Amino acid sequence: MAKELNMKIDPKLVAAFVDSTENILSIMANVECRIGTPYFKTSKQPTYDVSGIVGFSGDVAGSVVVSFNEDTAIVVVEAFAGEKLDVKSEDFADAIGELCNMIAGNAKKHFGLNAYISIPSVIVGSGHTVARLKDTPCIVIPCTTKHGEFAVEVNIKQLVRVTA
Amino acid sequence: MAKELNMKIDPKLVAAFVDSTENILSIMANVECRIGTPYFKTSKQPTYDVSGIVGFSGDVAGSVVVSFNEDTAIVVVEAFAGEKLDVKSEDFADAIGELCNMIAGNAKKHFGLNAYISIPSVIVGSGHTVARLKDTPCIVIPCTTKHGEFAVEVNIKQLVRVTA
Repeated sequence: MAKELNMKIDPKLVAAFVDSTENILSIMANVECRIGTPYFKTSKQPTYDVSGIVGFSGDVAGSVVVSFNEDTAIVVVEAFAGEKLDVKSEDFADAIGELCNMIAGNAKKHFGLNAYISIPSVIVGSGHTVARLKDTPCIVIPCTTKHGEFAVEVNIKQLVRVTA
Repeated sequence: MAKELNMKIDPKLVAAFVDSTENILSIMANVECRIGTPYFKTSKQPTYDVSGIVGFSGDVAGSVVVSFNEDTAIVVVEAFAGEKLDVKSEDFADAIGELCNMIAGNAKKHFGLNAYISIPSVIVGSGHTVARLKDTPCIVIPCTTKHGEFAVEVNIKQLVRVTA
């Protein structure tokens, strides 16, 4: 059984998400993004319009949320899917979910841990927040593209040490 | 490797969530709920104000979402936590997450499958929807309490047959 060592996030995990986000956006959507300095989320929560959420289980427990303002989401999805999609359509949700799945799946490969990811959920709703849970540290990775901003929230507890 | 058999949800899985929802609400929050007829979610999506999401992996892939209108969430959380909490507080999010975790964890025990669940994520935002993904069936279990309505959305793909 995996044992919880501490509440800190190993910097290697954050680095895996930074690299994965840059690579997936660049390779899959031809969108270059500039990564800002990651910070611990406090009770003050940024709000977004579209979020993709992937749950982690195994040696890493929690979730990763990729959150967009609507305008940014529309442009990124258009670049990824090759066509402009209605925000309320299933195709739009599928595209956001697939991007989120790729970012999480690609990062996971570099953990050196036994982790499982869930199928993404996609939230659509102007000005929603993903609430911070008290017992799970959350690091926000701010990302800027020429189409606008988005964020990757790494909301995970590590149950064993990263070995890779 | 688990093999995807079909896109249908085994009625036993839905029954596990119906029983779990009734039991957890009754035992943990002393809230009686009446379960309506479950239905397949279509592209028309109900909107909510507060949602808890738990991801599944292993032999069952997807997520389960417990969604409330704000007024219902406030009363249910007060009954569960023993005190009235601010919707924007971490304690409120923790309570919604814990209820969602209990409903998912209790249902999972009755699957007869090897499934893992993630730590919950909690979304707060007036009138958001959890979008339907095209390749994952979603069954909505409507629930009514004297404090208002909520819904459990079982958004999962079964990768092996339920044996229990």
